Amino acid sequence: MNEPGQQIGADGENVIYIGKKPTMNYVLAVVTQFNSGVQEVAIKARGNSISKAVDVKEIVVNRFLPTLKEKSIRTSSEDLANEDGTHSKVSAIHIVLVK
Amino acid sequence: MNEPGQQIGADGENVIYIGKKPTMNYVLAVVTQFNSGVQEVAIKARGNSISKAVDVKEIVVNRFLPTLKEKSIRTSSEDLANEDGTHSKVSAIHIVLVK
Repeated sequence: MNEPGQQIGADGENVIYIGKKPTMNYVLAVVTQFNSGVQEVAIKARGNSISKAVDVKEIVVNRFLPTLKEKSIRTSSEDLANEDGTHSKVSAIHIVLVK
Repeated sequence: MNEPGQQIGADGENVIYIGKKPTMNYVLAVVTQFNSGVQEVAIKARGNSISKAVDVKEIVVNRFLPTLKEKSIRTSSEDLANEDGTHSKVSAIHIVLVK
């Protein structure tokens, strides 16, 4: 239960948040989730980590679990509050894989 | 006809390839395409440019052309031949927007 970025979402969704760790850490986190019996895993990332999220999805599906299906890929803009009180927009991606 | 990354695909698809220019260059290329009467524009990127492709899509839709619909978002792995004869896998994204 100490995988990189792993969290359980509000609706019980298994979410892997992509951050600054090496890509393979997140790949193994996703594979471990599916191997533990979970039916659905979401991969989420913001900003420059979006590219890494796509890498994680491609490596998981092409190299480890080729029977997975891509349920959805959504993009969005999130509003981030800066320390000086201003706001910035940052893009985000939400990829859902299912068994 | 000199917009950043603009090309006409084999099937007549209007494609904007995301590269190393500033994000707003590509945003304006997409907006210009739609304003010239095109019904559908594809945004393509590989590797670290994937994050910028998502930024371009979000800025085009949220700030310039809010009536656009997202037709599809696909990811893939592409095989790149290196100069030394080896091959590398690189992730890619293909976002299609329609009027």
